[in-house]
Order: sequence, then structure tokens, then C-alpha cells
Amino acid sequence: MQFHLDGFRTGDPAIAPPARPEAGGMPAGSATTEVDVLIIGCGPAGLTLAAQLAAFPDITTMIVDQKPGPLELGQADGIACRTMEMFEAFGFSEKVLKEAYWVNETSFWKPDPENPREIARSGRIQDTEDGLSEFPHVILNQARIHDFYLEAMRNAPTRLEPHYGRRLASLEIARGEEAGSHPVSVKLERTEASGADALEIVKARYLVGCDGARSAVRQALGKPLLGDSANHAWGVMDVLAFSDFPDIRLKAAIHSAKEGNVLIIPREGGYLVRLYIEMDKLNKDERVASRNITREQLIAAAQRILHPYTLDVKEVAWWSVYEIGQRLCASFDDREDDADDSRLPRVFIAGDACHTHSPKAGQGMNVSMQDSFNLGWKLAGVLRNILKPEILKTYSDERQAIAQELIDFDREFAKMFSARPKTSGNGDDQGVDPKEFQSYFVKQGRFTAGTATQYRKSSLTGPSGHQHVAVGFPVGMRFHSAPVIRFADAKPMQLGHVVKADGRWRIFAFEGSGAASTDQTVRTDPMRSLCDFLADDSASPILRHTPAGADIDAVIDLRAVYQADHQSLPRERLHPLLTPCKGRYGLIDHEKVFCPDLKTSTDIFDLRGIDRKTGCLVVVRPDQYIAHVLPLTAHTELTEFFAGVMVVTDQRIASA
Amino acid sequence: MQFHLDGFRTGDPAIAPPARPEAGGMPAGSATTEVDVLIIGCGPAGLTLAAQLAAFPDITTMIVDQKPGPLELGQADGIACRTMEMFEAFGFSEKVLKEAYWVNETSFWKPDPENPREIARSGRIQDTEDGLSEFPHVILNQARIHDFYLEAMRNAPTRLEPHYGRRLASLEIARGEEAGSHPVSVKLERTEASGADALEIVKARYLVGCDGARSAVRQALGKPLLGDSANHAWGVMDVLAFSDFPDIRLKAAIHSAKEGNVLIIPREGGYLVRLYIEMDKLNKDERVASRNITREQLIAAAQRILHPYTLDVKEVAWWSVYEIGQRLCASFDDREDDADDSRLPRVFIAGDACHTHSPKAGQGMNVSMQDSFNLGWKLAGVLRNILKPEILKTYSDERQAIAQELIDFDREFAKMFSARPKTSGNGDDQGVDPKEFQSYFVKQGRFTAGTATQYRKSSLTGPSGHQHVAVGFPVGMRFHSAPVIRFADAKPMQLGHVVKADGRWRIFAFEGSGAASTDQTVRTDPMRSLCDFLADDSASPILRHTPAGADIDAVIDLRAVYQADHQSLPRERLHPLLTPCKGRYGLIDHEKVFCPDLKTSTDIFDLRGIDRKTGCLVVVRPDQYIAHVLPLTAHTELTEFFAGVMVVTDQRIASA
Ligand SMILES: Cc1cc2nc3c(=O)[nH]c(=O)nc-3n(C[C@H](O)[C@H](O)[C@H](O)COP(=O)(O)OP(=O)(O)OC[C@H]3O[C@@H](n4cnc5c(N)ncnc54)[C@H](O)[C@@H]3O)c2cc1C
Ligand SMILES: Cc1cc2nc3c(=O)[nH]c(=O)nc-3n(C[C@H](O)[C@H](O)[C@H](O)COP(=O)(O)OP(=O)(O)OC[C@H]3O[C@@H](n4cnc5c(N)ncnc54)[C@H](O)[C@@H]3O)c2cc1C
Repeated sequence: MQFHLDGFRTGDPAIAPPARPEAGGMPAGSATTEVDVLIIGCGPAGLTLAAQLAAFPDITTMIVDQKPGPLELGQADGIACRTMEMFEAFGFSEKVLKEAYWVNETSFWKPDPENPREIARSGRIQDTEDGLSEFPHVILNQARIHDFYLEAMRNAPTRLEPHYGRRLASLEIARGEEAGSHPVSVKLERTEASGADALEIVKARYLVGCDGARSAVRQALGKPLLGDSANHAWGVMDVLAFSDFPDIRLKAAIHSAKEGNVLIIPREGGYLVRLYIEMDKLNKDERVASRNITREQLIAAAQRILHPYTLDVKEVAWWSVYEIGQRLCASFDDREDDADDSRLPRVFIAGDACHTHSPKAGQGMNVSMQDSFNLGWKLAGVLRNILKPEILKTYSDERQAIAQELIDFDREFAKMFSARPKTSGNGDDQGVDPKEFQSYFVKQGRFTAGTATQYRKSSLTGPSGHQHVAVGFPVGMRFHSAPVIRFADAKPMQLGHVVKADGRWRIFAFEGSGAASTDQTVRTDPMRSLCDFLADDSASPILRHTPAGADIDAVIDLRAVYQADHQSLPRERLHPLLTPCKGRYGLIDHEKVFCPDLKTSTDIFDLRGIDRKTGCLVVVRPDQYIAHVLPLTAHTELTEFFAGVMVVTDQRIASA
Repeated sequence: MQFHLDGFRTGDPAIAPPARPEAGGMPAGSATTEVDVLIIGCGPAGLTLAAQLAAFPDITTMIVDQKPGPLELGQADGIACRTMEMFEAFGFSEKVLKEAYWVNETSFWKPDPENPREIARSGRIQDTEDGLSEFPHVILNQARIHDFYLEAMRNAPTRLEPHYGRRLASLEIARGEEAGSHPVSVKLERTEASGADALEIVKARYLVGCDGARSAVRQALGKPLLGDSANHAWGVMDVLAFSDFPDIRLKAAIHSAKEGNVLIIPREGGYLVRLYIEMDKLNKDERVASRNITREQLIAAAQRILHPYTLDVKEVAWWSVYEIGQRLCASFDDREDDADDSRLPRVFIAGDACHTHSPKAGQGMNVSMQDSFNLGWKLAGVLRNILKPEILKTYSDERQAIAQELIDFDREFAKMFSARPKTSGNGDDQGVDPKEFQSYFVKQGRFTAGTATQYRKSSLTGPSGHQHVAVGFPVGMRFHSAPVIRFADAKPMQLGHVVKADGRWRIFAFEGSGAASTDQTVRTDPMRSLCDFLADDSASPILRHTPAGADIDAVIDLRAVYQADHQSLPRERLHPLLTPCKGRYGLIDHEKVFCPDLKTSTDIFDLRGIDRKTGCLVVVRPDQYIAHVLPLTAHTELTEFFAGVMVVTDQRIASA
């Protein structure tokens, strides 16, 4: 954490100074309110976006939900490793780590071959492969995740608070001449008011529908969810129970011979456990409510499946029977299918509003948050005149492709899960071999951990022609953290944790030992010449894209990783750009330079396959994805990459 | 974290359910208030004690301070490893880790031999030896530590809040017949009120003076601080400064040739730095105020010492000139020197109230908190009728001896620090060789880390006759944590972190492979026979000392560590006492059993030198100190140890 840059402040440093004295949420009432971004829905997607936008004092955001207040319990609970990495960027990963259940291993149960009416353990595996992420896979009440986001919003300079009790009633997008600065016009219905007070009008530059599977925003755009018309019904309950099932504190996938399947998810606090019980497939357009399933039926089903083990339920904290189909929207913004390139989006949908799938792989909440993490910095960058507005089109392109992969994965995974287990050894049996299910589960570990996401080549994702200089940092994938030592204070830490959700881009420059040149000029130290270029050259992306008056790292944050041990790297080798002066006092930022952690023998150069000769540049987007990998000397390509994405903002250069 | 045992609760699990609906601090006003414990002073000592007592719904505590509100900045900032371990027990170590500066290395500077008017680095060492603690040595504003304690108090079942603006005016202790249940009578003066409202009377069972170096409680007891009559004056300032001193982000001890010494302590947030500048020794009874030292003088002194490096101070966040002598009180409670054994203490003093020393070794705040951590559980245990009242005498005995060691250490350390550095190589030079200072510093690392504390043999600290069965757990020292895997959910964790500040004792039973007996009865498994003994035998300390109706682990919490890998330990081997049923629903507590972490090749049996054949019992006090080490089979000695400390509370046994 860095703080006190602009002067010492007492109290909790996580609470940012307020942007304006009167900050404290948007005015609301019958008058028309104008905001930069209006978010519909306080689920994980909406809150991730709101927390991201709240960080910028110069952006006005409003987030509304039809519910009377924050979620208190229930819904999703699985938090993938990749999501934990994102929580680290939002500053609350340690809270989740402390409170959550950690999924360390998963066990598999099938009918006992000797006595198929009883279940027996068929396998037990490590849940997440070693080195996949510096974070574990954890389980925590969705409501608590909401709480952490709400706290982050409250502590942000804009002091953003949701407006509850407001339902989206209608939505209009003005086009062409009428558009003006705030082309999206929305009517909100106050669920706890009547008469003249009951309707509010909000005009927004951008609207984001994070309003869940029955999204009114999506419907207003006339974009259907395509896919299975039949739904699957799931029973889910969070219980306090006495059980002699041996793996009651392990994630356990249980296939009984005749009674169905149950997935056990141990929960936070040591006593609570969630049970997912798969119900019958529903008929086309049938709603699960019509089945009148009771919680007693769910408990009885779980008890039958767990036989011979007992399950004595003492309290049901939450339960639900919910239906879900594998469905997907063809695009995630308001551009028409045949819109030409110049047509830019004004309305977006994210999360369950554009894709739905079974809960078995625990992806709903995770993918929803990743959707809006992808969108947030793009909106902020465009609103703050740092990014080109065309960047907004990449949101739908990138996330729709990921959602499609998820749907495909989920279809197969759910099929595996729901299939009757093979009971005989012979080939006639149509069931799924539990061994096969288990090995599928292992293979798909990276996918469910959220670390397999890879964005395709685009203006945001450079060509991977130089991938060989850093094979462990694949272009389009998330920046995979590794241990390092911070040079100035010898602190062992994770390099990836410098990537905060602050809208900034990072260039990680990994030192190369130098080109095979015999030229004796200073240019033979490629790190120094990179810094010279970035600090002084008129083609420097840092100079071109940083607004005058802003700190040198306000838009693009350069970090250097040297090969030497931190005690032997001479301080004189650091270019002044690596100890930049910032803030109102011009204080030195000492946190830009890192060395490998040689003591624990996890040298980041080896771990991530970095070419020690050429060194490399790893360009990382504000959402932690790798935009580009280049040799350390590829100054021109670096300039070109940023030119494709960013507005030229430095007045000196813009007018030159 | 364990929660939801007595039913699911929404919201932050760190916020305990309130003890009484009307909980929210003690009533205050002109009427006499009766409390179990009255604490004078909201410094680190007072707050540690208050946070400890606040955890018990059945104890009423009042804590007052003459200041109008909480500390906002300044004072101490060093947090030793041992203190971090204690913060873990209070549930906020992760907050400190996140916010603090980590002292990873310390550097040493001396006059440049070639040019003694300039300073040059003479050494650089790792600050804390490997494996000393699972926590680093960190630096954080004392005010933030106060904040974390205040939050812990607020979240505790008693919702304890300090009463500010109240100064101790007088104190009386009734003796003999007059004593009654609340023998300590105190007048508090309200600093912001006048007339009849200005005086409050509080009667307490126990009073604890945590009221700092000029303690009114100590004075009321007529106990002087003995030691140096001359004080040393120190200048200290927290600054935001621009400096080219290379080690400005490392803890650095700098001895200049002629200009004096400075100690640099980098601070939280990346920009702030503390400078300690030693001033002249004061004359007997002289106060530093008389010297009229200004902050400009301090800055100028620091600049001279740092030459040739620059220090351009942009903002002084806090500064102080304070005097301190090495002084110590002969006893820390109200018993007279010649009091007979039956006389039990009613008033205690803790922290700076009973010992003062230089700030150089960063011990003031740490030792003060350890004082009252030592006292808190003893008071709670006696008040709750679990511990014998005589235990209260051990507070002064234990902590006075530790304070004496500290004073001795500090005298030598400060002398080293203040001495003129040797400049010539020849033996005539009376100065201190910087190399000698550095090696002294290394040697004393365990001391300053707070991990060297060892309590002497007493009713609380068993004889160390069986130390050989667990050489890495020295009796009288703090339980040195080590990595383990929790059996039920395969979670990698620190075993020491199960010791929370909840007033409970722990027995860690380390499995032995069994006696060389050929007897085929179940008794050949010593872990099982231990559990049989503890669960059923009338001599079982668990049965003897746990109140009827309480959970089986409410007073003594048994934890087992097996030798086997966690996947191969058969669940059937666990005695039911190791999966106890608790709370209103009788839910199983699955967090009692551990296995070595074989994957990271840090087997706790090897790491702590546990005899694999005999196994062992490590009895740990509520303040994390080791009370006793015994072979796994030493049932009788276990019974005897607890009989010496605890009241027999089980009605069945007490009346038998
Ligand atoms: C009842 C329920 C149970 C679930 N159980 C599980 C589970 O067991 N496991 C699992 O993995 N996932 C479960 N999910 C799915 C998981 O919660 C979602 O995948 C995840 O919450 C998606 O996040 P989101 O932000 O896209 O949408 P949501 O979390 O659905 O949030 C949408 C928000 O928008 C609000 N909203 C909707 N329409 C409007 C409107 N017109 N105006 C204003 N506000 C509006 C809603 O009130 C809601 O707060 C469950 C979902 C629900 C609804
Ligand atoms: C001004 C100052 C600067 C310091 N600077 C450093 C430093 O730079 N480095 C370092 O290591 N240590 C420093 N210390 C010492 C360090 O803060 C103490 O060692 C530590 O706070 C001791 O904790 P304590 O709880 O025993 O006492 P204190 O923190 O002194 O707390 C005592 C409390 O009791 C209150 N009190 C006193 N008398 C009464 C009364 N009659 N009635 C009611 N309330 C009363 C006081 O207001 C105070 O809040 C400093 C202390 C002070 C006072």
C-alpha cells in the first residue's frame, strides 16, 4: 500500500480523501440526474464495475437495484483463483482469505462396486495445480463479497453508495443529432414510493445492465439469450448439520447409483456446508416453481444419496430451487449486428444478463465479475480521455468469446456431472466412468480457476510474434504473478500485486544482459536506453499519453525487474525514471524496481521463461491481462501499440 | 475463523453477537459505577488488556483515559515479531501486515575511513533470522495499533468503548472486613465537565494502571521507579522528505564522526520516514522542555549527520523531543514487599507505568502490550472462577523479571548506540567499533524480536524435566508456530494460529509411535489412551475444570498432531474427543486434528525436535506461552499441573 504521498493523513489509509467536500452519493429525487455511468443491478457484476469507477474522482457513477438493500445471504459462493487475483487489485483479498473456506482438495464418491446401494470414495485430488496462482480457490457467501465491494466503494474518493429500491422502467438511446453528451435516458421506478416521487429520470453517457438473468436492459435492447430452451433445476441449501460423512469438510462430488448426485461444498466458519442436489430437467418454458419442491424434499434426497452416511440437518440457513439453461447473448452491447465500424456502443450488458449456465463449475459469479472488470477500465479510460472510444467495442468482442467457451465447457461438465455413473465394467453401460469424470475434472482445473482465459489478437492484444522472449507470460492471458524482492526495502512480495484496479497500464521491463554489440556507448545497457527513450524521446508512450501536470506514472506505470540479487545491484544503475518524483512535494517513489527472490530459489526469470539475453517488455492492461510482449529494445513497437489504444494527451506533443 | 456454531448469522463474522441487548459501554455519570476491572489509560498496555477482557460476556470492564479521544499520530511504531504473533491471536495481524512497513534488512553506516566527514555503509544484514517467527518485524504508527484494538473491542460481545476525558484523581483500596466484593474505589475527574458532574466514583474488583511513565496509579501505590536519575533526550520526527540517502527505505543506524547518530526507520505507505536523533544527556531531574529544542534544530542535526547525502524535509507529520531514563519498579502490583503469601493483589501496573527505557531497541510499546497480555487472561480466569486467585501473583513475578532483563539489555544497547564510533584502527580509541555494534545487534535479534522471553519455573511454568521430548518447545517460552496441514479440510496453516486470545488453555498432543510394549490392548496407542483418559477418567483435567454445560473445549482445548501424511491417516483412528460435538446443535468441530506439511518438507516433528517414539504433550497458556512439556503418556503429571492452577468446577467431580 502506498499512501501519504500528498501529505500525512491520520486514520485508515484505505479510506481515500473525498473527491469533493460534498461527495456522498448522487442526488436523487424527481429531478433529472445526469451521470457519466448508470449501472443497473447490485450483483457481483454491477458492484465490480461500481468499485472500479468509484476510484476515479472525475467520474460520476450511479448504481441502482430494485431490492430494498444489500444481499444478506445465499446465491453463489465459489471464488476462483483468478477472482482472488482481481480482489487483490481491489484491495480486499486478505479479507476473503481470512474468512473463506479454502478448497484444497476435492474428493469423488461413487457407488460401492461391492454394494452399489452405498457410496464409496473413488478418488481424492488436489483441487488446484501447484503454481497456477498465488491464491487458493476459496468459498464464501456471495453476500460477503458484496460487502467488501460496498466497503471499497464507500472508501473510494467518490464515496459511492448504491441507490436501492429503484427498478429500471424504461430505457431510450438517442442517436445522431439528438444524442448530446448524455444519450442514454432511463426511467427508474421507486419501489417504495408512489405518485410523483415514484419516478426518477436519469441521463447517462453510458448505461450498463448488470441486472441478472432476466435483464430488463437486455430486453430493452431486443437481444435474446440463445441456447437450450429447457432448463435444469437445481436444489441448493446451506445447512448446519451433523453428519458422519467422512469428507464433509472437503469439496466432494458424489454419484449414487440410483438416487442422483450431490455436490458438497464446505463453507466458511467451519460448520456450514452447502449441498447442490440436481433435480429433473424441466420441460420447455416450465418454471421450477410449478414443481413445488420443498426443502424437506431436498434434505430427503441428500440423505438418500449419502447413504450409508447420515445427515442430520439442524438449521437451513438458506435454500433455493433454481432453474438454469445454457444460454448466451450474441453480443454484449447495443450495436446492431450490421452496425458499421464507426458506431460506438453506449449500452452494455454484463454477467448473468448475457450468459447463464449451471452452478456446478462455480462460474456464474466469477465470470460476471470478470466481465465488468474488463469493461470498467475501458469506460473510465474513455471518459477520462485517455483511451480511444473505439476501445469500447472490444468489451463485447472479448467477453462474448469467453462466455461462449464457458457455455461449451459447462454443457460438457454438467453432462458429465448429471450422468448416471457406470456401474458395470463392460462397454454396454451408457453411464460415465467416475474415473473419467475425475480426470476430466483435473484437466479442466485451469478453466474453472479462471486462469485459462485468453483474449484474441486485437488493438488491445498485440501480435504474439515475440512470445519467445517471455514464454511464461502468454499474450492475451492474465499476468501470472511470481515472487520477487523489492529493491529499495528488500521486501519479498508478489510482482503481480503491483497491478491495482486503478485504471493504469503497466510496463514490466525485465533486464537483458545486453545485445551482442561491441559498441561502447551507454546504449549497450538496454534497460537504460529504454528509460532514456521513455523519459525523453518524443515517441515515448509515457510522454505522449500522460496529461500535462499528472504524475509520470499516472497513465503508464513502468516497473523494472533486474537479474541481479537485490543486495548486489548498484543503486547507481537505476535510471531516474525508476525513482520518479511524484505528488505535490516531489517525493521519490521507491517501489518501481525489483530483483529475483534468489533465497527461495524461485527466480522469476526462470519461472516465467524470460530470455536473459534480450530481456523483455510485458505490457499489462489495467485488468491484469497481458496486452503485449516485446524485446526490451522494441521501442518503436511499444510506441505503436500505445498509439493504437490511447489518445495523445501531452499538450507539448499533441500540438507539435 | 470459526463461526455459525450456534446458528447462521448474516454480516461480518468478526462482529460477535452482543452479550446483552443493551451492551454498549458502561453507564457513566455521577452515580457510583461497579465494574469487575477498571483500566486507567488507553495506551498499548491498556488497550491490549481491554481487548482481552472485552471477549468475555460475563466480565464488566471500564477503560478510561484523560485524553479527549483516541491517539491520532506519533509515539512508538516498532512492532516485534512476537507482537505480531499476539496480534494474530487478537485477530488483526493481517491488517497490520498489509499496512505496515516490513523491516527486512538493517544497514549500518559509519564515518568513511578515507574521508571521516562523510558517512559510508559498513554493513547490511537481514533484520530477523530465518525461522524465528512466521511473522516479520514491522513498523506502523502506534495510533493505528490503537485503532485495531478499539475495533476488536467494539466487535467483541461486550461492545467495549473507552471513556475518554477522565483523569484518575484518587484511589483507595479497602482491606479486610471493609473490602467487600469491589475493594478498589476510584475517583475520576471529568476533564471536560465541571461542578457536580465533574467527579465520578467507580468501584472495581481490580484496577490496572496502564497510565504511562508518570503513572498516577503507581504513585498512589507509593512505588517508585528506580534507576538512572539522569535522562537521555531524544528527538524524533516523522517526515515526508526528499533524500538521496541510498538506504532511506531500509532501517539504518548511522554513526557520524562528529555530528552524532541517527536511526532511520522507514514507515508505512512508502514515503514517510522516522528519524531518531540522539540529543545530549540531561542533568539530574532536568526536563527536556528546558532546552527549547525546535524541530528546525532536529532537521539541521539530521542533515549534518547524513552528510554528504541530502535531506530536504517537505512536511513534518509529527515530532517530539522526549526524555527517558532506564527505570523500573520493584513490583508490579499493590502487595507490600513484606506481604505474606495469602495477600493477593487488587491493583496492578503495566507498561510504561512500571518500566521505561530508550526507544532505540523499539521495545516500549511491545513490552507494554506483552505485560497486559500476560495479565488479561489471569484476571479473566480468576473473575470467571476458572483459575485460582493466587495466580494473580504471578503477573508481577513474571513481568518484573522480564522488565529487568529489558532494562539491562537497553542500557548496553543504548550505550553502544550513543558511543562515538572508533575512527582509528589502534586500541587507544575509546569509541565503539561499528563492526562490534553490528555483531551485537545480530546477537540481540531474538531479544528485540520479543521471542527470547522465558518465564521461570512457577505454578504456571512446569519443571522442564521432560524437555527432551520436544526440544523445540522450551518450557516458559512462547509456543513457536510451525506449518501443518489441517486433517479435515487439508488446509495448509500455522499450528500456532489456533491459539486465539480467548482465555483458553491448549494441550497440543503430538503422536508417538507407541511404547515398546508388546501388550496388545488398545492402550498401546498412546494418543488413544490419552483421549480415553481425558474423556472419561475422573482425574481428567478437562472434566475437572470445565463447568457443567460448557463446550468440552471451553477451558482446555485439545489439539492432536499426527505423524502421518494427512491423506493416509485413517479417519477411524480419531478418538471422538478429537471431533467433539459443540454448541446448541451439537455440531462437530472438525478443526482439532493436524498432520505434518510433508509437501513443503517442513515436518513439524523435525522442525521442533519432537520425539517420534514417545510423542509429547505441550501445554500452552492463553497468552501463547508454554506452561509444560510432558511425554504423551504422562496423565498424572497433566492432572497435577492443572490442579495447581485451576479451580475444580465440574459439579460431579467437585461433589464426589
Ligand atoms: C436465487 C439465486 C440463487 C443462486 N444460486 C447460485 C448458486 O447456488 N451457485 C452459483 O454458482 N450461482 C448461483 N446463482 C447465480 C449467481 O448468483 C450469479 O451467477 C451471479 O450473481 C451473477 O451476477 P450478476 O451481477 O450478473 O447478476 P445478479 O447477481 O443476478 O444481480 C442482478 C441484480 O440486478 C437487480 N435487478 C434485476 N433487474 C433489475 C431492474 N429491472 N431494475 C433494477 N435492478 C434490477 C437484481 O435485484 C440483482 O440484485 C444464483 C442466483 C440467484 C438469483
Ligand atoms: C510523547 C511520546 C512519544 C513517544 N515516542 C516514542 C517513540 O518515538 N518510540 C518509541 O518506541 N516509543 C515512544 N514512546 C513510548 C511508547 O509510546 C510507550 O512505550 C508506549 O506507548 C507504552 O504504552 P503504555 O500503554 O504503557 O503507556 P502510554 O502509551 O503512555 O499510555 C498511557 C495512557 O494513560 C493516560 N493517562 C496517564 N495518566 C492518566 C490519568 N491519571 N488518568 C487517566 N489517564 C491517564 C495517558 O493519556 C495515555 O493515553 C513515546 C511516548 C510518548 C508519550
